[in-house]
Amino acid sequence: MNFQEIFPVWAKLNRTQQQRLLAGLSERRVERGAVLHNGQADCTGLFVVQSGQLRAYILSDEGREITLYRLFDRDICLFSASCIMRSIQFDIAIEAEKDTTLWVIPAETYRELMAESAPLSNFTNELMAGRFSDVMWLMEQVMWKSLDKRVAAFLLEESAIEGTSALHITHEAIANHLGTHREVITRMLRYFQSEGLVKLSRGVVTLLDEAKLRALQA
Amino acid sequence: MNFQEIFPVWAKLNRTQQQRLLAGLSERRVERGAVLHNGQADCTGLFVVQSGQLRAYILSDEGREITLYRLFDRDICLFSASCIMRSIQFDIAIEAEKDTTLWVIPAETYRELMAESAPLSNFTNELMAGRFSDVMWLMEQVMWKSLDKRVAAFLLEESAIEGTSALHITHEAIANHLGTHREVITRMLRYFQSEGLVKLSRGVVTLLDEAKLRALQA
Repeated sequence: MNFQEIFPVWAKLNRTQQQRLLAGLSERRVERGAVLHNGQADCTGLFVVQSGQLRAYILSDEGREITLYRLFDRDICLFSASCIMRSIQFDIAIEAEKDTTLWVIPAETYRELMAESAPLSNFTNELMAGRFSDVMWLMEQVMWKSLDKRVAAFLLEESAIEGTSALHITHEAIANHLGTHREVITRMLRYFQSEGLVKLSRGVVTLLDEAKLRALQA
Repeated sequence: MNFQEIFPVWAKLNRTQQQRLLAGLSERRVERGAVLHNGQADCTGLFVVQSGQLRAYILSDEGREITLYRLFDRDICLFSASCIMRSIQFDIAIEAEKDTTLWVIPAETYRELMAESAPLSNFTNELMAGRFSDVMWLMEQVMWKSLDKRVAAFLLEESAIEGTSALHITHEAIANHLGTHREVITRMLRYFQSEGLVKLSRGVVTLLDEAKLRALQA
């Protein structure tokens, strides 16, 4: 896979800018479960996903988590380079949900190019606006939606991503996606099981009735 | 007050760009309580606050509200012009909390200038990153903080903004800031009163013990 073909505003950069971008680029392979970035102090650079899957999340002081958004093939992660803007005053963590290959663009290189290139800066605006939209969607879910709807939506999303109705996921992992406690998820899944929506077995949640789950999440 | 002196990247725009910006500008005065913007369909333009106070919030289908951030003198509101970026996929509402005078920059003018001016585009990135940080802060509050801490923090913030310990605010308004129900706020404030933190009277919440409120919010 070719960086030039993936990077959206490549053609709008001049020759010198393209060379600077390529010169700074490095490739990285990480295994499922690896934490690639953790908090603001750590200005790792922008991630451009070649293949795999990343998860951006926040952590509470007590170690609770909530997933903000996922990154798939060709997605770009800006907040692993939060030092490129002084107004980014929050910490996120990023972990690999699958074995992932990515390019890293050094924060300093990106910041310099963005300062001189309106197309790159406008692209960055769109990138941030997209993530902002993800977080606003999440905020609405957390504020106005009951947890049963959110669990139903999460199971359906997960099943779509994995292409299977048998999800290999722990109750704790689901809790960490949704920002709640394992016990709460276990209780909810048992209720779902009693209603015939899912089947639970060791480390696996199997979706039995996607239509009902879909009706529930609405 | 002079737009040229307030607008942060004025000096980095060229003469033609400055003239286009000024030509599009209009001034608007709104009274306390006026809704200036409501949702995405409505691409009102960017607001630049001369004096007064605005509140940006989201609304649930059931009419519940939560405050995202406030705008004070010289603050700029981007999301009242959400059509300038196609990736902004969320709806916010904006109302005047005090009588407010503002400039409106037409969305189309701003978008055109941003497309050609790297400084303006980078400034917009910083503006959005600042609001993103506000919303991430709020997300952490909502996810990890109990409501008593959030009510204490809100009363202290409100008292600092108004410069008084006697707040003329209804329980419903507090609920709408914090994304909860009036009854919940009433119960919490009565508990605060029984602990000697506040005194409640018709339409007024008086802070009696700021030190204890400060200890509580932490």
